[in-house]
Amino acid sequence: MKLTQEQLAQFDRDGYLFFPALFSPEEIKVLTDEVPRLFVDRRPENVREKDSDAVRTNFAAHMYSAVFARLARHPRMVEPVKQLFGEGVYMHQFKINGKVAFDGDLWQWHQDYGTWKADDLMPEPRAMNIAIFLNEVNEFNGPLMFIPGSHKLGVVDADHDTTTTSYPLWTIGHDTIRKLVERGGLVAPKGPPGSLIVFHACLVHASTANLSPWDRWNVYLSLCAVSNHIRRFKRPEYIAHRDFTPIECLPDDCLLRDYDVSLPWKDGTPEEALHPMPRAA
Amino acid sequence: MKLTQEQLAQFDRDGYLFFPALFSPEEIKVLTDEVPRLFVDRRPENVREKDSDAVRTNFAAHMYSAVFARLARHPRMVEPVKQLFGEGVYMHQFKINGKVAFDGDLWQWHQDYGTWKADDLMPEPRAMNIAIFLNEVNEFNGPLMFIPGSHKLGVVDADHDTTTTSYPLWTIGHDTIRKLVERGGLVAPKGPPGSLIVFHACLVHASTANLSPWDRWNVYLSLCAVSNHIRRFKRPEYIAHRDFTPIECLPDDCLLRDYDVSLPWKDGTPEEALHPMPRAA
Repeated sequence: MKLTQEQLAQFDRDGYLFFPALFSPEEIKVLTDEVPRLFVDRRPENVREKDSDAVRTNFAAHMYSAVFARLARHPRMVEPVKQLFGEGVYMHQFKINGKVAFDGDLWQWHQDYGTWKADDLMPEPRAMNIAIFLNEVNEFNGPLMFIPGSHKLGVVDADHDTTTTSYPLWTIGHDTIRKLVERGGLVAPKGPPGSLIVFHACLVHASTANLSPWDRWNVYLSLCAVSNHIRRFKRPEYIAHRDFTPIECLPDDCLLRDYDVSLPWKDGTPEEALHPMPRAA
Repeated sequence: MKLTQEQLAQFDRDGYLFFPALFSPEEIKVLTDEVPRLFVDRRPENVREKDSDAVRTNFAAHMYSAVFARLARHPRMVEPVKQLFGEGVYMHQFKINGKVAFDGDLWQWHQDYGTWKADDLMPEPRAMNIAIFLNEVNEFNGPLMFIPGSHKLGVVDADHDTTTTSYPLWTIGHDTIRKLVERGGLVAPKGPPGSLIVFHACLVHASTANLSPWDRWNVYLSLCAVSNHIRRFKRPEYIAHRDFTPIECLPDDCLLRDYDVSLPWKDGTPEEALHPMPRAA
């Protein structure tokens, strides 16, 4: 898994790369079989929908689930990001995100780096988002929509929206979106389970409601260049991680074979991970 | 404009027919130039958004706007419906419907005949919906989604939803939708301005929010077989019309040339059209 010159140029221009079916159905089944077990737990890592008990987002499964811990060290996912940054990366955020059939809510236009900068004091947008499809993503179940090239503008002014959805978000105004779309258009990568998108921390994205009868679960990871680690521990550690050790990849078959991984939160979330902390170093 | 045997069979199987770019850009421009003039009027025919002053739906423009009155008599639209029913048709409902950029709301799964039967006592689903695209419809601006073949079930049980959107609607439950989609899948016809969809009164449809910077305005017409006229005048006449005279088509160039049409509501909506009425005949 080495990006070609063409892929590097494409990433630079568009701000994302799409790899349909990068993981096999067998590999994805290992992950989807684990998800229901994660969601029954009454852990702070499970964030539920505004109007129901359904889990909308699970955070930090790689800290207490062996299969997701192995995914977090998968070379097909980690190596391209290391190549793009030219240095080691650590896991800034790890989540399983649902836009469930009929009820899955929309996400307004935003950049992820807006939050990382404002809340976590991440110095530069040298962090990358990864989306891995656990279900087929089609035009009906609320695919991610990107504005290609919008990452080039750096951080765009945004307003803190705490009302639209269950999760507060720095959202971008209509005039800015209009201008960005005039220049770059819109895309919505669609594909089978196991597809993977790498996208820039500043790429502007949104997704609409899911009215279809098809769930749309994604694993979302944010990998941050080690030298660019966050400087403030304001958000709970299960949302913004505080361990900056570079990820060491497992072999390519790590989802299908049982490699040893550490699971530090296996017996529960440590008390200090739930609260803001003065920075240690 | 005569439907072929293949088109008739396709309509019977799927419940809809799609004609991309049936009207030319020049013809559509005549309509879109008229829309802003309609929307400034403080008439009951303009229904505004829940949270803003923006018009979401304009009703009955064909009763007071010459260009829309000519559209209401257009042979490319009316003749196929007459052919499908084998008799004359009258205008049951005429509206211009907006799903505006960024703010356009979603419509839950529903059948239009549910409302016509419950509110208007329309005897049979012998009425047809027509959607004419005033803007390009793409995957980003909330296209109509259909469940092909769902018209075959007749009227499906529904609940009266008065909370989700600005317009009360008989919406269909998740289990029913799941079963219908398993059998028929989902489609969302997309195309340039001037495209036209004919769809069955019982075809189950929905549309998602419009997060894109592109407005999506449609003209929606419901043409009812004359013998199947409504039996109750509960809804205001600008929503459910009470004149069952069969439509007489104008020539094919009626959007580009100035044919004479009657505009009975030109000077305002008549008082009796705003209220329920005991049936005359």
